[in-house]
Amino acid sequence: MVAWKNMDTLNSFKEMSESKRVNLVEAMSGENGAKRAKEYSVPMAAGLVYNYASKEVDDEILDKLSAFANEAELVGKFEALYNGEVVNTGEKRLVLHQMTRGQLGAPVMADGVDKREFYVAQQEKIAEFANKVHSGEITNAAGEKFTTVVQIGIGGSDLGPRAMYLALENWAKKNGTFKMDAKFISNVDPDDAAAVLASTDVAHAIFVLVSKSGTTLETLTNESFVKDALAKAGLDASKHMIAVTSETSPLAKSSDYLAAFFMDDYIGGRFSSTSAVGGAVLSLAFGPDVFARFLNGAAEEDKLAMNNDIKNNPALLDALIGVYERNVLGYEATAVLPYSQALSRFPAHLQQLDMESNGKSVNRFGEPVNYKTGPIIFGEPGTNGQHSFYQLLHQGTDIVPLQFIGFKNSQIGTDVDIQGSTSQQKLCANVAAQIVAFACGKKDEDSNKNFEGGRPSSIIIGEQLTPEALGALLAHFENKVMFQGFAWNINSFDQEGVQLGKVLAKKVLAHETDGALKVYSDLLNI
Amino acid sequence: MVAWKNMDTLNSFKEMSESKRVNLVEAMSGENGAKRAKEYSVPMAAGLVYNYASKEVDDEILDKLSAFANEAELVGKFEALYNGEVVNTGEKRLVLHQMTRGQLGAPVMADGVDKREFYVAQQEKIAEFANKVHSGEITNAAGEKFTTVVQIGIGGSDLGPRAMYLALENWAKKNGTFKMDAKFISNVDPDDAAAVLASTDVAHAIFVLVSKSGTTLETLTNESFVKDALAKAGLDASKHMIAVTSETSPLAKSSDYLAAFFMDDYIGGRFSSTSAVGGAVLSLAFGPDVFARFLNGAAEEDKLAMNNDIKNNPALLDALIGVYERNVLGYEATAVLPYSQALSRFPAHLQQLDMESNGKSVNRFGEPVNYKTGPIIFGEPGTNGQHSFYQLLHQGTDIVPLQFIGFKNSQIGTDVDIQGSTSQQKLCANVAAQIVAFACGKKDEDSNKNFEGGRPSSIIIGEQLTPEALGALLAHFENKVMFQGFAWNINSFDQEGVQLGKVLAKKVLAHETDGALKVYSDLLNI
Repeated sequence: MVAWKNMDTLNSFKEMSESKRVNLVEAMSGENGAKRAKEYSVPMAAGLVYNYASKEVDDEILDKLSAFANEAELVGKFEALYNGEVVNTGEKRLVLHQMTRGQLGAPVMADGVDKREFYVAQQEKIAEFANKVHSGEITNAAGEKFTTVVQIGIGGSDLGPRAMYLALENWAKKNGTFKMDAKFISNVDPDDAAAVLASTDVAHAIFVLVSKSGTTLETLTNESFVKDALAKAGLDASKHMIAVTSETSPLAKSSDYLAAFFMDDYIGGRFSSTSAVGGAVLSLAFGPDVFARFLNGAAEEDKLAMNNDIKNNPALLDALIGVYERNVLGYEATAVLPYSQALSRFPAHLQQLDMESNGKSVNRFGEPVNYKTGPIIFGEPGTNGQHSFYQLLHQGTDIVPLQFIGFKNSQIGTDVDIQGSTSQQKLCANVAAQIVAFACGKKDEDSNKNFEGGRPSSIIIGEQLTPEALGALLAHFENKVMFQGFAWNINSFDQEGVQLGKVLAKKVLAHETDGALKVYSDLLNI
Repeated sequence: MVAWKNMDTLNSFKEMSESKRVNLVEAMSGENGAKRAKEYSVPMAAGLVYNYASKEVDDEILDKLSAFANEAELVGKFEALYNGEVVNTGEKRLVLHQMTRGQLGAPVMADGVDKREFYVAQQEKIAEFANKVHSGEITNAAGEKFTTVVQIGIGGSDLGPRAMYLALENWAKKNGTFKMDAKFISNVDPDDAAAVLASTDVAHAIFVLVSKSGTTLETLTNESFVKDALAKAGLDASKHMIAVTSETSPLAKSSDYLAAFFMDDYIGGRFSSTSAVGGAVLSLAFGPDVFARFLNGAAEEDKLAMNNDIKNNPALLDALIGVYERNVLGYEATAVLPYSQALSRFPAHLQQLDMESNGKSVNRFGEPVNYKTGPIIFGEPGTNGQHSFYQLLHQGTDIVPLQFIGFKNSQIGTDVDIQGSTSQQKLCANVAAQIVAFACGKKDEDSNKNFEGGRPSSIIIGEQLTPEALGALLAHFENKVMFQGFAWNINSFDQEGVQLGKVLAKKVLAHETDGALKVYSDLLNI
């Protein structure tokens, strides 16, 4: 049995806190820097590498991080999780998102079934359905093929699947596996659904309604929005919609849908990209084989998270460095900076994954913690970000740790050679340059042009953003967030903080308000 | 003459720092909360209202903020700026972006011309050109009308215009002023240009190359990318491209372009949405009249920024509250949360505007400052964000001040009534609920479900997101950032922090590297 203890009760945390700080300018300059850049590197799945040479750690600090990981039993807690312990204590639920892509430990029985078999069965059902849609066996009422899939969902049912779709869209087009466009309706703002529908050939669209509970207000509202549009076009909605939901939801057995695919309470929305939530839309868009390759990449990465040795466990190492940055060095935010336009919405997905999981002030027993937990996460793709907020990152009054991502090759492969280099080379040259610029800075007599340096970053480098690489990348960050939650002794798998707003919004709509809430309701004309 | 002094040398700042803190839970509860919600409200242009009742200020603190504004001469500094003083001291330049939409003070002569006349002339030239494109007087070589405009630019030449285009796209379609689709190519990642071009009918596309200097690496590279694609399609690039640049740039008189429109050194990229940088693409997409209405909204908002009374100067008040939050209350970030899908990229634009302007550690004389300057800015539209990072905002260990934006009416007007309310009402109910939830919280015996409250927010409320409202909104934030820069005594109008990365990237491409930079270059296969 693992012991769930607050971080600040552990000796190893105190020792970690008393570490001698690394001077990053010195560490990353000259031959010492070259040595670090080569050595501080951990292989990941799918040919990726996690390089942390430009983080404020050295061998001594790494030893302390390792000691902390051991005392906090971080890998043991992961083991408890994948063996089916009720790790989501607040909601009294198992946490099984890794099982959608593999079996890491013993079989886990729940709801009377083997859960791995359950997830595989859903994946197979989706694959079969998607193949029939692609072959023209399942069509619209007029017998015509569907050409677009539209996901209706919000939060985890939107951000992850959308980010993954954008990440692989061009890859699939280039590699001949692209089956149909995917679009997404999420916001309760009626202009969201109206605009998506206006640009969609609804007669040839298949809609995926995603709601675990079957009661998410935004999603059910947008479902009605879509049904109205289908009715106006003289179409039978039940021939255009599928549901992804839990088996116990009101949607599960409704004749309103062509088919229903199941998720369950053991997978939080933000961890659901590899479940039926991502599976339906991605299998329809790219084919089931691409989705399976994406899962394989994630499964391989998950296996690495089982290692006790932090130098063979990139997610754990990344997590520990993040805890050191947050709780010892005192940094409040982390920027995610993929040098890949295909990852344009990956930071938005990680923003949810991280901030919703670890933005907590009480431990897993409901007691207030005396230390900082999850940081603010934000980011945009490079090189765009360089021309935007990097000014503050380089010369602002706060230090923001950075997580770069880069690939040697582009997805599409079309390129131009200007001034002796391709665009892809320019892209890669920029991310290499940024790591060193942030770490080492550059002295200048004009203090306005002076760069202090000492600004830490890591980079994940891959050959190309393939389905496997994307799966590995996703799993890496999911596991990083999980390990950090374990380190902070919080429950990363509930989200009670979203409830109060929902309750008050219902009161506003029922006109049961007083005080300031009534004034704002009036100001907004509700 | 105004005196440029560091904030911490001012008595009024010390007094502001010693303010008794507001208990936001008490202040916003019951009838007191209703009173504040009604009273703490300032009219803006275009029918907008800035409501700050849920910020941690009271009449006493507002008096101190006002005294600080007076001692720091913030409005006087704006007066110096619009009357043509060299406020951008680092680059020794005037700062004239407000003049693209109106004349606030005395005529300003520079480069031998009256600058207001210069900007108006560019706007008129663009209007004439756009009208000819729309009427079919200017066509492609085959005599066919252009149907798409593609902006090639990065940073300020991308984020602002792109955010403004998305903000008005559906409004224009609904109101019959939509002329052509706009697309954007920005990243040096070759997959960005390749994907945009693959989805564009290049034979009927007009490309807008935007680079003030005519030397921006990404933009020139992407221009070549586009020219390659045009050549492959058998098209003459010079019949498909216009340039927006400075009169002294190599692009200005090139026969490579159908036309050139001018900006100048007195407008930073991030402040250029109301110049030719936004003007060309927005006038082509929506018609010159819509662009003119957008400028009018901004011009009206600018006039409010001239008021010495903080209660009649919403940008100044917003700026002062932000300084109080940053330097007295110690908050490190601000989230921008528009409850409007049309404003989906407005936070990304403000992220550049704010972080590139005020992410500085030295004052305008190049001396290090002893206080925090610009915060981290991030955000996503509501209600999407509620299902993402709001967990941390409600229950995380750091307090993040919030800036909500909401409109009573949607842009498209298509809606559904579910459970007795429309989607628009649900959208508005959610933002009203969030303000009160963040401020007042809610006690719960289960500490996991407890909301401490005390989390400050403001809201800008409008009737609808029209061109005028968008202009006012943009000018509000531009002026807020400007006033904060004045308060911090920094130069908000240069961006030396972006230079070092560029220099090192060139070295990488020239293979002139050693140490860590060489290792990363090798790892990335450059």
